Amino acid sequence: MNNRLKNLKSRLARRKLDAMLVSQPDNRRYLSGFTACDHDIQESSGLLLIPRQGQPLLLTDSRFEILARQEAPDFEVTLYRKGLNTLLEKLLPALNIKRLGFESHYTLHSTARKLQQSCTKVETTIIPLTGLIEKMRLCKEAEELAIIEKSVHLNEQVFQEIFQQLRPGMTEIDIAMRLENLMRHKGAERPSFDTIVASGPNGALPHAVPGHRAIKKGEPIVIDMGLTLAGYCSDMTRTVVVGQPSNKTTEIIRIVRQAQLAGMATIRTGLTGKQVDSAARKIIQKAGYGHAFGHGLGHGVGLAVHEPPSLSPRYTRKLQEGMVVTVEPGIYLEGWGGVRLENMVVVEKNGCRLLNQDSTGLDI
Amino acid sequence: MNNRLKNLKSRLARRKLDAMLVSQPDNRRYLSGFTACDHDIQESSGLLLIPRQGQPLLLTDSRFEILARQEAPDFEVTLYRKGLNTLLEKLLPALNIKRLGFESHYTLHSTARKLQQSCTKVETTIIPLTGLIEKMRLCKEAEELAIIEKSVHLNEQVFQEIFQQLRPGMTEIDIAMRLENLMRHKGAERPSFDTIVASGPNGALPHAVPGHRAIKKGEPIVIDMGLTLAGYCSDMTRTVVVGQPSNKTTEIIRIVRQAQLAGMATIRTGLTGKQVDSAARKIIQKAGYGHAFGHGLGHGVGLAVHEPPSLSPRYTRKLQEGMVVTVEPGIYLEGWGGVRLENMVVVEKNGCRLLNQDSTGLDI
Repeated sequence: MNNRLKNLKSRLARRKLDAMLVSQPDNRRYLSGFTACDHDIQESSGLLLIPRQGQPLLLTDSRFEILARQEAPDFEVTLYRKGLNTLLEKLLPALNIKRLGFESHYTLHSTARKLQQSCTKVETTIIPLTGLIEKMRLCKEAEELAIIEKSVHLNEQVFQEIFQQLRPGMTEIDIAMRLENLMRHKGAERPSFDTIVASGPNGALPHAVPGHRAIKKGEPIVIDMGLTLAGYCSDMTRTVVVGQPSNKTTEIIRIVRQAQLAGMATIRTGLTGKQVDSAARKIIQKAGYGHAFGHGLGHGVGLAVHEPPSLSPRYTRKLQEGMVVTVEPGIYLEGWGGVRLENMVVVEKNGCRLLNQDSTGLDI
Repeated sequence: MNNRLKNLKSRLARRKLDAMLVSQPDNRRYLSGFTACDHDIQESSGLLLIPRQGQPLLLTDSRFEILARQEAPDFEVTLYRKGLNTLLEKLLPALNIKRLGFESHYTLHSTARKLQQSCTKVETTIIPLTGLIEKMRLCKEAEELAIIEKSVHLNEQVFQEIFQQLRPGMTEIDIAMRLENLMRHKGAERPSFDTIVASGPNGALPHAVPGHRAIKKGEPIVIDMGLTLAGYCSDMTRTVVVGQPSNKTTEIIRIVRQAQLAGMATIRTGLTGKQVDSAARKIIQKAGYGHAFGHGLGHGVGLAVHEPPSLSPRYTRKLQEGMVVTVEPGIYLEGWGGVRLENMVVVEKNGCRLLNQDSTGLDI
């Protein structure tokens, strides 16, 4: 049995749970190796039923049967031909599961209701759990860090190759497509999120969707991109200028870079996400742009591109060794545009280790 | 006020609700015009708070403020700087909302718990709703049908252009990327789902992920693709062969096509999804492949690529005029491969109207 399953089972024992139902796709993959994505939360590709004792099961439908067998050899693949609840009404008594945990933060209110009805029939109590497996995923194993590092470097290669091709007149969407194509050509599973290419005034929207606007000489272009490699995500933002940046652009890039460096210099085991955010935010506030930095400084990255911990004014828990976080301050000015710079680091005992090698446009 | 809001408000009145919270992204877009997607269900881009009387609100965060103002002029854009629940604790008493509906099928169990806590504080009762707005979306308005038809035809143009380029040796992923790129170049917002290109034995997985396998002469290649245009989805599957198909391939394509025609010939207002599924399924069963058709015959398409109604053995509700559904029987044989053929139709009083013009590989 793999160590992650062993770890989970001891957590179930501590909570006096007979089994746990795992529906969240990244958690499912983390424990089983099953790589399927969910089309959406209402259309699951499968669930794990992990009893504290005995064989873990992967419950899925016929569409995923072959894939599940190939990818999750530790699990017994069982199909729910008449729906999940009908299957559970059989399995729970057969496996003598009296207390069943489920993922409160990845189970719909309506799904939980139906689960409650089925479990009542077979005298099983359901217990909502939050973040149980996410907590296991917080600090990355050495093997995971190695994959994340590969994911970061592949992402940088893709960025570099397309960055060299940038010319005035290319549209945002054209650049985004070149990036995403090259990711796949170089072996990424997929982009880890919709690539952002936001030029000129469009940069003022932190989550801009690439459009048919042509990029121009001298304006800041925010490129926020990431890819998934063997399940693990990368996430990087560069703000680049084709030709000479204006004085204002240079000034703002320098402020954002100072904030980023201040954030990175603060990160170490034992400090809170709030403390790190604050160190970076102060730089932007002092420069008079506090109002123009509306989001948190960073977020965890792993199987999910956004996962705990968070570097933000509201995250008061402490950072731990082996966590991977982004450091991404930004300044957004409606009508003018935006600047965001984002790197990924691993939290260490006395500081942090930068995962990025690329330094395009950071120090101008 | 737009008709959809008016319609919703009268539904709220019937249920004696003072307001409804809308979190599901397609429902949000349907009512407001706000096009943002959610990164995932745990990371909302915004919610609508629609009181039975008075100004509807769009609650979002600073990342989406500008976009929301541009796209949803009927709504008052309000930011939740300290979290959604803090904002609701102010708004609900201010707007005198005593009974608040929420979307049970797009609210997480954990989110519903927190909402319950906040609402208890301000003496508001929360009422879970299921499918209220989805019901409004079931039958398409003439304007929606016109956009869906455009979406279908653009998808077919993309298919045709890449189909002409198919050569042995091209990889699945290369074909999928060409398709998705061309979608975006031709003005689609995005693919409506991850494009499937499954060649030879890979076709046996109905939800195969395109890989680095090169396509070969004579084997069946399943191409399942769709795009989103002005919010509305298309979805089409063709099974094509480069060169001459084998006798077995020809035989199976003919059975699947007969099943598709039988399904389409059965569709009309008043019949159930189960009845239509059954008409097509019988053909495949009689040919001895009943075990190899493991999914339903079809599903609704609109703002979502999978939405009600469903053509399946478990869907016993009646079809209505203006519904849009796919008709997509398939035969999947492990080790050999698969065949699926998928068209989209509009349900009409005495039959159905085919939205597809492309007939590649259907009648061989």
